[in-house]
This record gives sequence, structure tokens and C-alpha cells, in this order.
Amino acid sequence: MKKERLSLLISLTLVLFLFTAVSYAAKRPPFSPQTEACLGCHKLYTPGIVKDWLTSRHAKITPALALKQPELMRRISAESVPRKFSGFAVGCYECHSQHPDKHRDNFEHMGFRINVIVSPNDCRTCHPVEVKQYAGSKKAHAIENIMDNPVYHTLVSDITGLKEIENGRIKLKKPSYYTLQETCLGCHGTKVEVKGMKTVSTPIGDISVPNLTHWTNQGVGRENPDGSFGACTACHPRHGFSIEVARKPYTCAQCHLDPDVPAWNVYKESKHGNLFFSKGYEWNFSAVPWTVGKDFTAPTCAACHNSLLVSPDGQVIAQRTHDFGARLWVRLFGLIYAVPQPKSGNTTIIRNKDGLPLPATFLNEPASGYLIDKAEQKKRYNVMTGICKGCHSTDWVNDHFAKLDNTIKETNEMTLAATKLMIDAWDRGIEDRSNPFDENIEMMWVKQWLFYSNAVRYASAMTGAPDYTAFKLGWWGLTHNLQQMKDMIEIKSRLKEK
Amino acid sequence: MKKERLSLLISLTLVLFLFTAVSYAAKRPPFSPQTEACLGCHKLYTPGIVKDWLTSRHAKITPALALKQPELMRRISAESVPRKFSGFAVGCYECHSQHPDKHRDNFEHMGFRINVIVSPNDCRTCHPVEVKQYAGSKKAHAIENIMDNPVYHTLVSDITGLKEIENGRIKLKKPSYYTLQETCLGCHGTKVEVKGMKTVSTPIGDISVPNLTHWTNQGVGRENPDGSFGACTACHPRHGFSIEVARKPYTCAQCHLDPDVPAWNVYKESKHGNLFFSKGYEWNFSAVPWTVGKDFTAPTCAACHNSLLVSPDGQVIAQRTHDFGARLWVRLFGLIYAVPQPKSGNTTIIRNKDGLPLPATFLNEPASGYLIDKAEQKKRYNVMTGICKGCHSTDWVNDHFAKLDNTIKETNEMTLAATKLMIDAWDRGIEDRSNPFDENIEMMWVKQWLFYSNAVRYASAMTGAPDYTAFKLGWWGLTHNLQQMKDMIEIKSRLKEK
Amino acid sequence: MKKERLSLLISLTLVLFLFTAVSYAAKRPPFSPQTEACLGCHKLYTPGIVKDWLTSRHAKITPALALKQPELMRRISAESVPRKFSGFAVGCYECHSQHPDKHRDNFEHMGFRINVIVSPNDCRTCHPVEVKQYAGSKKAHAIENIMDNPVYHTLVSDITGLKEIENGRIKLKKPSYYTLQETCLGCHGTKVEVKGMKTVSTPIGDISVPNLTHWTNQGVGRENPDGSFGACTACHPRHGFSIEVARKPYTCAQCHLDPDVPAWNVYKESKHGNLFFSKGYEWNFSAVPWTVGKDFTAPTCAACHNSLLVSPDGQVIAQRTHDFGARLWVRLFGLIYAVPQPKSGNTTIIRNKDGLPLPATFLNEPASGYLIDKAEQKKRYNVMTGICKGCHSTDWVNDHFAKLDNTIKETNEMTLAATKLMIDAWDRGIEDRSNPFDENIEMMWVKQWLFYSNAVRYASAMTGAPDYTAFKLGWWGLTHNLQQMKDMIEIKSRLKEK
Repeated sequence: MKKERLSLLISLTLVLFLFTAVSYAAKRPPFSPQTEACLGCHKLYTPGIVKDWLTSRHAKITPALALKQPELMRRISAESVPRKFSGFAVGCYECHSQHPDKHRDNFEHMGFRINVIVSPNDCRTCHPVEVKQYAGSKKAHAIENIMDNPVYHTLVSDITGLKEIENGRIKLKKPSYYTLQETCLGCHGTKVEVKGMKTVSTPIGDISVPNLTHWTNQGVGRENPDGSFGACTACHPRHGFSIEVARKPYTCAQCHLDPDVPAWNVYKESKHGNLFFSKGYEWNFSAVPWTVGKDFTAPTCAACHNSLLVSPDGQVIAQRTHDFGARLWVRLFGLIYAVPQPKSGNTTIIRNKDGLPLPATFLNEPASGYLIDKAEQKKRYNVMTGICKGCHSTDWVNDHFAKLDNTIKETNEMTLAATKLMIDAWDRGIEDRSNPFDENIEMMWVKQWLFYSNAVRYASAMTGAPDYTAFKLGWWGLTHNLQQMKDMIEIKSRLKEK
Repeated sequence: MKKERLSLLISLTLVLFLFTAVSYAAKRPPFSPQTEACLGCHKLYTPGIVKDWLTSRHAKITPALALKQPELMRRISAESVPRKFSGFAVGCYECHSQHPDKHRDNFEHMGFRINVIVSPNDCRTCHPVEVKQYAGSKKAHAIENIMDNPVYHTLVSDITGLKEIENGRIKLKKPSYYTLQETCLGCHGTKVEVKGMKTVSTPIGDISVPNLTHWTNQGVGRENPDGSFGACTACHPRHGFSIEVARKPYTCAQCHLDPDVPAWNVYKESKHGNLFFSKGYEWNFSAVPWTVGKDFTAPTCAACHNSLLVSPDGQVIAQRTHDFGARLWVRLFGLIYAVPQPKSGNTTIIRNKDGLPLPATFLNEPASGYLIDKAEQKKRYNVMTGICKGCHSTDWVNDHFAKLDNTIKETNEMTLAATKLMIDAWDRGIEDRSNPFDENIEMMWVKQWLFYSNAVRYASAMTGAPDYTAFKLGWWGLTHNLQQMKDMIEIKSRLKEK
Repeated sequence: MKKERLSLLISLTLVLFLFTAVSYAAKRPPFSPQTEACLGCHKLYTPGIVKDWLTSRHAKITPALALKQPELMRRISAESVPRKFSGFAVGCYECHSQHPDKHRDNFEHMGFRINVIVSPNDCRTCHPVEVKQYAGSKKAHAIENIMDNPVYHTLVSDITGLKEIENGRIKLKKPSYYTLQETCLGCHGTKVEVKGMKTVSTPIGDISVPNLTHWTNQGVGRENPDGSFGACTACHPRHGFSIEVARKPYTCAQCHLDPDVPAWNVYKESKHGNLFFSKGYEWNFSAVPWTVGKDFTAPTCAACHNSLLVSPDGQVIAQRTHDFGARLWVRLFGLIYAVPQPKSGNTTIIRNKDGLPLPATFLNEPASGYLIDKAEQKKRYNVMTGICKGCHSTDWVNDHFAKLDNTIKETNEMTLAATKLMIDAWDRGIEDRSNPFDENIEMMWVKQWLFYSNAVRYASAMTGAPDYTAFKLGWWGLTHNLQQMKDMIEIKSRLKEK
């Protein structure tokens, strides 16, 4: 009977669907015996991370299968993966056991040799292209770029050092490493060294573990016990390692927030941010490649700065990069003046005309030899604007970035005005130029460039936040701060005269 | 057999469901041949906006069908739509080709006459009621209200103008239009004019396009090349034109944020905001009309200020309005003192007793002739509180707004206190009254009303953010700022005496 | 036939599923006749809250059924519930009619005796354990802890009192209760008393209702007309009473925000916050008990401070508590110095060596007799760190809290430095010590502990926000504020000398 056949067909379809669903749910790559052993205990003792890892792609695919994906869809950049890893899920042991000879944090744990810290050098087994790109970035040099640059190091120490009052005067002490770890080095990264072993009382009794210095930390430039630099977990948090998390702006927001790096704050108030918050729940943050218009209709940080983007018909709009400055032609923040991006991710090698490791002098003469040239700037401009053109006309994009050029010029001039006032204060002897960051008027000068000029540039670059730029952190601050500096200089000068 | 019949019934239901689903997915209104032509290229060259438009209601219904909706459910306010538009989806060409004679930005593009900018006058074809309401609002006059009011224009220039140091003095220059565009006029709107044509290098070669001034911009009062004012895209971003986006508070947050307009910041910390963030994912932001309790259980900005609201049994609670002040009886922000709403959206016509275009004098004598009277205030109060009563008892609502009355009185007095200090400073000759905004003590006075008083009023009006009002932006600021003004006046006076 | 049997089986399964779904949807507990009467009118007059309540668990289960849940899954802590309540949904009348003799806000309303306010004492019928825990917490004493402590009361009055200028001097007036209600008491709670009856004009005509003072309010320590303290609705907002809402951090954010209590701001920028925002949409915020790793993979405020947590295998990780300090060993915020938690939730009973109701002297000598001892501190440390260990190793957790110890020490020292400068200012006679909060330098001192030190401690405790701590609210502020205090003291001293 026809009716019966139809019902049969449907029933069979349903059964097939059910079977596929069930078997799909059951199907997971084999876990290595070592990883199974880890899971045996850790599902009892740190159940949260075990469950988190089980949601990860690492738990759901083997490197061997990952390598078979079409190139654009591949999330693994190695040409091949050592046989011992290729047939198992990427589990506890696969990550925490590599290169034991290099890992000074390797220790005997329940019969296995385990590294406490998984470093970029370990991730490199499957993700060599990303690790290499990252190694050239400013992020990988994030510790030395502030701690080994005497100018920034002075600023860091002035802010985070403990102060005591002695005879009515403020006495600055050296910052504790704990406080550095919770402030600057929380983002930049700490130097994690192994100082022998120590005993820790745990729910399963006393165990012996490496005694790590300046731990815990996931800063982008972390110095690892195997000598490598960086912490992939800064953006791909353990143990889900979710590309979705890395692509959502909350990740970048951990370190890039106002007043000194207000990328997140500007994004939130921008049109792009509005669309992310309003419609993002419909977007696909996990697709590789990431298709403009289909997977998302407004960019997050990752879209413009990192991700592999394609058009709906599969044309590559931008190649993936883990060198976070690779699409940037000017350096907007963290500097006294905005100048072209540096040639090297290691910015301590720069020397300006005054001999300081800064990309411009205090009066804004750029150290051009250390900065990328016009041709390289143009190249990067083209990559970035190519992304904008996924949604905007060429004319729109050009007009937008013409504004940024002007903003860089004007914020540099507003900073220069403050610098001139500060030099005036030094010349009058009301503050001491030997340390340019530690007195009241000097700190007002720092606010001019580190808070207000930065903020205006971010808002200009990211098509957004006009009210933010006007009043919250930007032009109001640039203007009022200048007036306050002038007033304070006059008051202190008048009092000094007498 | 009974069993067979049952299985048959279920099977048929499934098939019917499947068929409906498939045909629904396939069914879309016809696109006009011109729009098809646009899409042919733009899906390759700006794929993001094409995909975005395809998600829009504009792409999914014809005006003819939209007109057939029951009145309360209608999203179109025209009585009828010209025949050439009524049978097609509202596509690229339908919006970008209207009134070519009025559009000085109309140009020949690939064989079509295209306007770069779609203006409220174009949207009026289908949405005349909204456009008319909007035209009467302060938003439609947003440019002239700050740029043609000499008081506000001075404030704008003081803040956004470049400053240089000459002989130790701060020299103010005229602000660049680029910076105005990124600050005040980013929200208020720019004047977009056509200065001939220009050639742009695009991925498909050089093309000739109108040379627009002060572009890009979507400010609420934008002056368009067809002479109209406003940008519907300020709140209905291209090209999804989603009512959901406009109803979510992120849209308003682009311009209404602290410190000068902290609507968004206060909402975030309020009970209403909490419910939006915690439960909003379950709400229906697209339903028209918008049903209290069913579609949402706590208001967003749009619910109180704009949307057509009904009760679950279909009674109208509030009519839709695109005059954003229509439900407001007092003007809380952007003014030295909070006073009744102005009669006209054009506030440059106001003259107070001192002859200034401000709704009150510096000592808070209101320019009552230009402001709505008690009867109109009561009318608006009733509309707004009618919305509150969807969830709150009459007593609750009355008690709530009694607090607001007191807050307006007290914040006006706290502003007056600062004004008196400032006048004292002028009288003593330590700052110069010729420009009331450009010196340190004057800027402190501006903070008193533009930042702190505003914030307290917002929090009072919006049932929320007590800690915000106490410490973040409000009473702490009102109090400390006053102390700092007094100290600074004393210091400068003492130094002047000598 | 085998095929037929299979199709039959599937069909029956579907039917069963459909039937269950439909009957489940239809099945709801009976509403009491009184509640049905309330709903009859209120679904017309306050439809929003009726619909909201219908979504609540209160509307979907009877206490009798709730009592039958396995212990860990139970959301009701009473051993038994009075028969008159046990068989009906927990509706309008069930909550608004209890203990009429105690409720001075009880009134005759449409033939029923109704309490306007439902108090913790009413909720106690079903939730006695939670009410008892809460009653011992600082939250339940939130009004007296600021209003009956003369030190804090002075601070409150200084900040929120109206100021007038008389003869060039700032004259402080007593704060209005309305303003207290919108600031400090908005979170801490108001004293709601009944002052007879009043007539209110409503959509159904004039009705007579109790005249409540200092209404509307949902502060955590609200004094209710039945003599009880607290408002469960502070965190479980009416009338959905959703555990999901209480567990999401937006609820805590209503009162715990920067600059004085930046729990929310720090959480937002932390790794935990990132995971909540990025992945929280996949979590189950309604499950009881709350399973680490399964229901969520990063904590919200409630996870660490309140909720009943279990591991995936059902072991209890932490017991539920509604005493919000029960898992805390140090008190980080709202104090001049961070010290151990107080023994009693009523902190007005504390006396330090100077006889002040503060847990330490101005020079940081703790009033140890009133504070928990080391053993109790250790006990609480173990409870809290037990939660951390759901995802982190013991070593990680220890290292983390070692940082907090150091941070407490350093922020206390940074506060002490400011205190010494302030005492210096008093000694020099440039500010007046009789009120320690009302002059410019004194307010700078308040910022040192209430804003900057607090913020650094929060960030340290919550594993997050290094940039926030460095620049936004923390070390930059601690340092610059100290410089500014010193400058201001020098300037005022020099001027005084002359």
C-alpha cells in the first residue's frame, strides 16, 4: 500500500537519523592510555577542567583526521603530526608531556613525567605557523618591552611601587613581584622559573610539585620554564581552547580596556559593537574559515586583526595571522606619540635621537629607521581595508581612514602641547626631570598621552564612540588636563618665586 | 487497522510540516530587476551588506503585503505605496533611486541613477508617520541645536579645538571638521554636501562617485544632500534595518553614555537592566505590537520612549512615536538646569531673560514661554506612567516620580551652588567670564551640571543605579567638585592678592 | 511484518512524547481561589507582573510537591508547609496575606486582607534556612551599619547632603530622605513605615492604600512594616523570582560596582567573566544543585559566594548559604583598612582602640576582639578554595591567594600613607579634623581607601583585571592621588604661612 510505504519511508528516515545521532554522540576519537589515566583521577579532583576539555575540539578529533580537512577549513597548520599523537584525541598527556628535557617544570606525577605548563613550543607540534607568527609579534616580547626598556620600567616602578611617608615626604619602594603580577605583568606575562620542588597538601594527600616562581599567570609574553615566550591560554582559555571565546571581544577585553588601552570600551559604544551585542547570538563564532555576511555581519576584534576571512563565495578576504600587528600600519597606543609600527616585535632595540628606546623623541621626532616604511604601511593598509570592504564601499573606507590620519596628527599635537608645559615645569625647577613620571604634573602629562590621546585614536580607528571620545575619555580630558597642568604650573611657580 | 491509521496520520503530519517548512524557506517576494542587477555585482564586492539585507524584513515582504497586515501589526504607515514599489521586496534600487531630482548625490552607476545616501525623505514613501514625528523632534534639529546656538558652539569649540602652547600660554584653534565628525557631530550629524565628482580606485577599477563632504556619518540630525535632516540608520543600522536592534539598548548606548548622557550606564546597573541582561534572550524583540509581559518583562529604552505597546489582551498601552521627547515632561540632560521640555525641537529659538538661547538663565530662571506648560507636562506624565503601570501599582509609580521631582530640585541647587562659585571667581578676576567654558574653574563648573547633575537625574528617572549615583557619577562628584572649586578659587585668589 | 512493527513503535513513541508534552504544558498546579481572584483583575491592570509570575517556579509547583524532591534538588528548606499553602501554587494571595497581625501595611483590598510588602518573615514559611542565614549576615544589618554608625553616617551626610553657597562658603544641609533613597539606601534599604492610609487614583477609580514611607525600595537591609529586615526581591526580582537571575552577575552588579565596590567591574575584565560572557549562553543557571563543569565552566558571583555546588559525580563541593560573608575570611571593601571579617553582621557594636565603631584605628590597629580569629579564617578559606579546586590545582589556588595576602598588606600601607598625609594636613591646620570627610584633602584620602585600595583588592581576590588594577582604578590612582594630596598640602601650607 502506498500509504504504508510512505509511513515506512518516514519511519526509516527517522531511525536512520536517530542512529546517526546516537552513534555520533558516542563516536569520539580514542583517548591515549596515559590521558585515560589522567582523566581517571582528575575527573574526581578537578572535574571542572575535565568537563571543559571534553567540550573542546581537542577532545573530539584526532590530529590525523584534522589534517584531512580541506585547507581553508583546517585548524591545524602542521604538514604532519608525529605518529604517537596523530591517532588520539589531544588530551592531558599529549599536551603536558612534550619535550620533557626542555621543561624544567617537568616532574614525576603518579608514574608519569608531566610538565605543569604547556608552552607555545608544545602547541607548535600541531600549530607551527601560528607559533611562528606569534613569536615575531610584540606580544611575544611583552615582558622585555616594558621591563627591559628603562623608560617603561621607570613608569612601571613609579606606579606599582609601594609608597611610604617619611618626614612628610613620599618615599618610593621597589614594586613587589606579586603586585607586578597583578598589574602590568598580569597581561604582559611573568617570568616563570622552577626553584626546586615543594610539597603541597591536596585532597589526596601531600604531593611533590615543582616550585614555580611568579605563578599563576597567563600573560601574553610569559617566559616559560622551557625557555619559550607566550601563553596561548591568554586568549584560548583552558581547557576548552575555544575559537569562539578567542573571537569574542570579551577575551581581548581582559587586557585592552580603558583608560590606557580602551579598545574594548570604544568597541562597546560603536556601531560594530552594537551589532555584536544585539545580533551576535545568531552568528557562528566557530566556523573556519569565517565567512563575512554568513557567519557574522559586524566584525569583532578577531575579524579585523586575526581571523581567516572569506566571502560567501569562498574567496579569501584575509589570511589568518597570529602576529597581532601584521595588519596595522600605525601604532596608536602605549606611546607618547603615535608613529608607524616598529619593524621588530622587540621594541627595546629602538633608539631615538635622544638615545632612548622610544619610537619618537619627547618632542615627536620619529626614530624612522626602526619603523616600517611607507610601502609596508600601504601593504598593511590594503589588507585591513580589504576587510572593511566586505561591507563598505571603497569611498566609505577611504573617508574613514582619512579621519584617522587627521586624528593621529591632532592627538600628537595635543600631547606635544602637554610635553611643552611639562618641560616648562622642569625648566622652572618646580618638578624634577630626572624621573619624568613620578610627580604630580608629570603624571598629568602621562594622562595626556597614555589615556586621552590613546582613546581618541582608538575611537577614530574603530568607527565609533563619538560621545566617548568627546567627553568620557578623549577631547574633554585633553583640554581640561592641559588647563589643569597650566594652572598647577602657575601656582607652583608663584609659590616658588616667593 | 487502527495502528496503521495512527502511524499514517503522524507520517502525514510530518510530511505536511516538512513541505511547509521547505516552501516557506523558498518563498520570498520578487526582487525588482534593478535590485537583481545591484545584487549581481554587490554580492561579490560588498557581500556583507548583501547578506545582511537578505536577513531584513525589507527582503522578505513586499509593501503590498505589508499593507494588508492588521493595523496594530503593521510596520508600514503609508496608506498606499506607489505601484512601482508595491510588488517587489524593498531592495537596493527601491531605496537608493528615489527622488533623483532632489538628491545632489545622485550619480550614474553601472547604467543606473543611484543616490549614495538614503534619507528620511526616501524612507517616507512607506513610513510617512514616523518621518513626520521625527522631523519635529530635537533629534532632527541636532546639528543646529549645538552648532547654531552660540553658547553650545563655544563649548564645542573649546573642547574639540586643537591647542598649542605659545610662550607658555594655551592657544585655542578652531576645531577641524574631522574631529567634530568623530566627536559631537558623530552623534548629532554632519552636513553632507556634494562637491562635484571624484574618482575612486576599487577592486573593479576606477569609478566616478559624488565627492561627499563630512562623510562617513550617521548622526541623528545629519543634513543630507537632498536637504532633509536625519539618518534613520542611526538606530536602524544598514542593511538589516532590524527592529530588534533598535529596541535593544546597545543602539541607544552608542550616543547616550556617561559622563554627559549616562542613560546607558544607569540602565545597565538598574533592576530593569539586570532583567534585560539576565532574561532578555528569552524575549521577543521583533513582535509588532510589543506585548508587555508576553514579549518582554522589563523595559528597554525603546519600550518607555518609542514603541507601540499593548497588554496581553491587546489593549494599547502606548502608541508608537518617533518623536523621542513626546513622552517626556522634563528635560534632564545637556542643560545647566533641568526644566520642562521645549515646545519646539529647534531649541535655538529659545531666549532666556539674559537673551541667551538657553531654557534658563545661569541662575536658573526658566524661559517659560518656550517650554511646555503644566497641562502638557501632565499629559506626557500620564502617557509615560501608563507604561510603568503595565507592571507596577499606581502608588509605586507615583512614589517613584515624586523622587524625581525632588532630584531635579536638588541637582538644580547643586548646580546653582557651583554657578555661584564660578561667578565669584569671575568677580574676583581670577578667571575670565567672556568665555564661560575654557578655563580650569569653568570646566569644573561644566562638570557639575553636564556630568554629575545629569547622572543623578538619569538614575532617579530610571529606577536604578543607587551606587552609581552615590559614588561613580553623581553625589560624590557634586560634592567633591564643589570643594575643589572652592579650594582652587581660594588658592588663585590668594596668589592674585600678592 | 517487521517493518510495520518498527513504524508502529516509532509512531507510538511520538504519540507518547506529544501527549506528555501537551499534558505537561497543560498541567499546572491549582491556584488558590484567592489567587484566582487577584489574577482576575491584575491580569488586566498590571499584566506585566502577572505574566512574569506565570513564568516563575512559584506558579508551576505546589509546596507539597516541592517537598518531595530529593534533598539536594530541593529549593525549599522547610520540613513541612502549612496545609493551607501546600496544595496550591505559590500565588499572589499566598505571599501577600501572611501574618496580617504583624503587617502594619495590611489593608482591605477588594474584599481581601492584603500586605503591600512581602517580607523575609513571610518567605520563611517555605524557606526558613535561607531566612535564618540571611538574618545573621551584614546585609540584613545594612541600614544600621551605615546609618547608626556615626562615622559612616557622617560620610553619608557629607556626600548626599544638599550644599548651598552662603557668603562664598559651602554650607552643608541634612540630606533629604528621597536622595538617601536614591543613593546609599537604594542598596542598603530604607525604613518603610505605615503612616495611615491614603487615596490613590487608579485606572479603576480611587482606592485606599497604606501610606508607606520611603517607598519604593528593595534594599538588602530594608526595614519592613512587619518589623523584619531585608528584601529577598533585591536579588530575586518580582515576580519571576528566578534563580537564574540571582545567579547571573547582573544582579550583584546593581550594587557592587566601581568605584567603591568594583566587584562587577573586576569580574567583567577577568578570565572568569570572559568565559561567562562568551559561553554562558550554553550554561544551565537554573539547575539545583549546581554542577561544576556540567552546568557551568566558570563561576559567577553566586557560585563562589552562595550556591550549593556539586561535582559531576554528585559530591557536594559547597553547601548553599544566604549569609553572604560565610565563605569570606577577610573584609576587603568599605573600610579604611582590610581586616578579618567581623564576628557579627551588626558592625555597629565594634569599638576600636580609639572608641570608634570601626574594625581598625585610623592608623590600622585592628579591633581584633570583634573580628573572626585565625581558626575561623582558615575554615572559611578551606570552603572557598574547595570551590576553586573544582577547576584548579591546589598549588594554583595557594599561589593565587598568597598574592591576595600581599595585596591586602600593600593596599593597607598605601592607605596608611594617605592617612599620614591627612593627619599632617590636620596638624598644620589647613583642614579641620572635626569632620574627617568634608574637605578637599579629606575627600582625596577617602578616595585612597574607598576607591583605589578596594579596587586593587577585588582584582586580586577575583583573579582578574590586571589592566583595570594598574590604570583604571587601582595603582595609578593610589600613586597619583598621593602625589596630589602632597602637592595640595604644600600649596595650602605655603599660603597659610603667609
